[in-house]
Amino acid sequence: MKKRIVLALGGNALQKNGEATAEAQKKIAVEVGKVIAELSYKYEIIIAHGNGPQVGNILIHEEQAASAKAPAMPLETAVAMSQGQIGYWLTQAINNAFALIGKHKRIATIVSQVVVDRNDPAFKNPTKPIGQFYSEKEAKELAAKNGWTVKEDSGRGWRRVVASPKPIDIIEKASIIELVKSGSIVIAAGGGGIPVYKTKILKRIKGVDAVIDKDYAAEKLAELTKADIFVSVTAVPNAFLNYGTPEAKALNHVTVKEINQLKRYGYFKAGSMLPKIEAAAKFASHPDRIGIITDIDHLEEALRGEAGTIITKS
Amino acid sequence: MKKRIVLALGGNALQKNGEATAEAQKKIAVEVGKVIAELSYKYEIIIAHGNGPQVGNILIHEEQAASAKAPAMPLETAVAMSQGQIGYWLTQAINNAFALIGKHKRIATIVSQVVVDRNDPAFKNPTKPIGQFYSEKEAKELAAKNGWTVKEDSGRGWRRVVASPKPIDIIEKASIIELVKSGSIVIAAGGGGIPVYKTKILKRIKGVDAVIDKDYAAEKLAELTKADIFVSVTAVPNAFLNYGTPEAKALNHVTVKEINQLKRYGYFKAGSMLPKIEAAAKFASHPDRIGIITDIDHLEEALRGEAGTIITKS
Repeated sequence: MKKRIVLALGGNALQKNGEATAEAQKKIAVEVGKVIAELSYKYEIIIAHGNGPQVGNILIHEEQAASAKAPAMPLETAVAMSQGQIGYWLTQAINNAFALIGKHKRIATIVSQVVVDRNDPAFKNPTKPIGQFYSEKEAKELAAKNGWTVKEDSGRGWRRVVASPKPIDIIEKASIIELVKSGSIVIAAGGGGIPVYKTKILKRIKGVDAVIDKDYAAEKLAELTKADIFVSVTAVPNAFLNYGTPEAKALNHVTVKEINQLKRYGYFKAGSMLPKIEAAAKFASHPDRIGIITDIDHLEEALRGEAGTIITKS
Repeated sequence: MKKRIVLALGGNALQKNGEATAEAQKKIAVEVGKVIAELSYKYEIIIAHGNGPQVGNILIHEEQAASAKAPAMPLETAVAMSQGQIGYWLTQAINNAFALIGKHKRIATIVSQVVVDRNDPAFKNPTKPIGQFYSEKEAKELAAKNGWTVKEDSGRGWRRVVASPKPIDIIEKASIIELVKSGSIVIAAGGGGIPVYKTKILKRIKGVDAVIDKDYAAEKLAELTKADIFVSVTAVPNAFLNYGTPEAKALNHVTVKEINQLKRYGYFKAGSMLPKIEAAAKFASHPDRIGIITDIDHLEEALRGEAGTIITKS
């Protein structure tokens, strides 16, 4: 039986040098598609992906060109739009990687709602900047009008900030499992998933403007789909200690216990390597599971145990 | 065994009185969701939907607020974005219709690429207006710059027009069948599908800026998924002869042969009832299949044979 992998593709995986046209992003998707098609002969594959730059541009367009006739879509719906967009590009790229070798395999993108807790403490302290920059005056007016939280962003202007709550469930998990079991490559939980919560009494689902970290969402997807391996596919071949300094040291094989020690020493940066490390270590806290951090070029080697940062329980 | 239905929800099914906020559209989706949840006890259901007003607004936002850093997405990608958007709203509405009665059923939206023929005569004569209105000067400049065809639209200004080719296949059909067979309600081929064609030699798939009629795409979906019933769900309970005149006559049960005669007499309007009639009659040209045209309020009665325009081979 094939092992099942969940790949969390970085939010910048489809954008290089800020080239944000559909054409430029599709071109990068072609390279990703080839690696995934190749891997699919050995593994069952589920792909989650980030959407930072893409949903950012959608929101900028929605907000700047909004009118009474064509109102701006809220963040939760913009995430759904980015799932359609990126899912389409990736699906087509993988389709074409098989076409090039005269083969065919099913690929399906499932629009995915990811459940968060309405009482997650993140909602009390929104930290994730999204959308365009505003002047202080505009930002405060929009905050009053739309109930937004706004903050000054590193001297670059004012932006809306939203909560980044933890994922607790994926509404479409059974469909995702059904498809991967029947031989499909599945793309799901894009952009960390459309954030929804369940109402207390009727358990209805409601969208909420938030951003779920894509590594945490992908790790949850890996747990729910009983995957064997979780890989955070990022821009560097390994997680490093002292990254960018002369003392930089690539991490190869590490245990969850060692990761926790390094975390306590403050080795990984929030918003950068930390969520990837945390997601991979959380997944690997079960003895039969492996968490990996690497880049797309070292993915095959890392799966053979010959590259990347490989995290296991012991 | 349950019969399998493909429902083609009208492009305006989620927008009433031009209310285009996400909130307003979600509210209408709730009503649609209740009907679909109810029907799912008797039928296997696949939903296709239009996206006219939604993709129109996406394109307006993309074009008006485009910049070098945040370039406009092309039409084919905008269709993918609208599939995420509308698929999310419909999925959540159906999820919640089950929650209200304390039940659960799987619903999945599949991002869908629909294949057209690059040599379809429609590409030589683009007729479908999309996106915003421009002045003649702006329109002609954009046409020169982007290779668009532009036309004057009924005295309201100039717009881009694109081809409306016929659907010939759906890339994701096997995944759609897999899910519906395993008990999911499936939402697919939204907005007529993301238009793609296959390159001649390598059979690679490429997106193309076009609009596939959602009734034709939904009919193709019904054929490919071996559905028993195809329903074009529109704004009126029946197809009519002489609609809007004192001689208006609702069509009840008609045969494909009768439909063809009425078409020859010029009874149905292109761009309005004609594609629905043609799609339903094409589907019903097989003796074991039924084509229906009705509105959401008469859908259950129509499926019992007690309302709507019901088309059969004989």
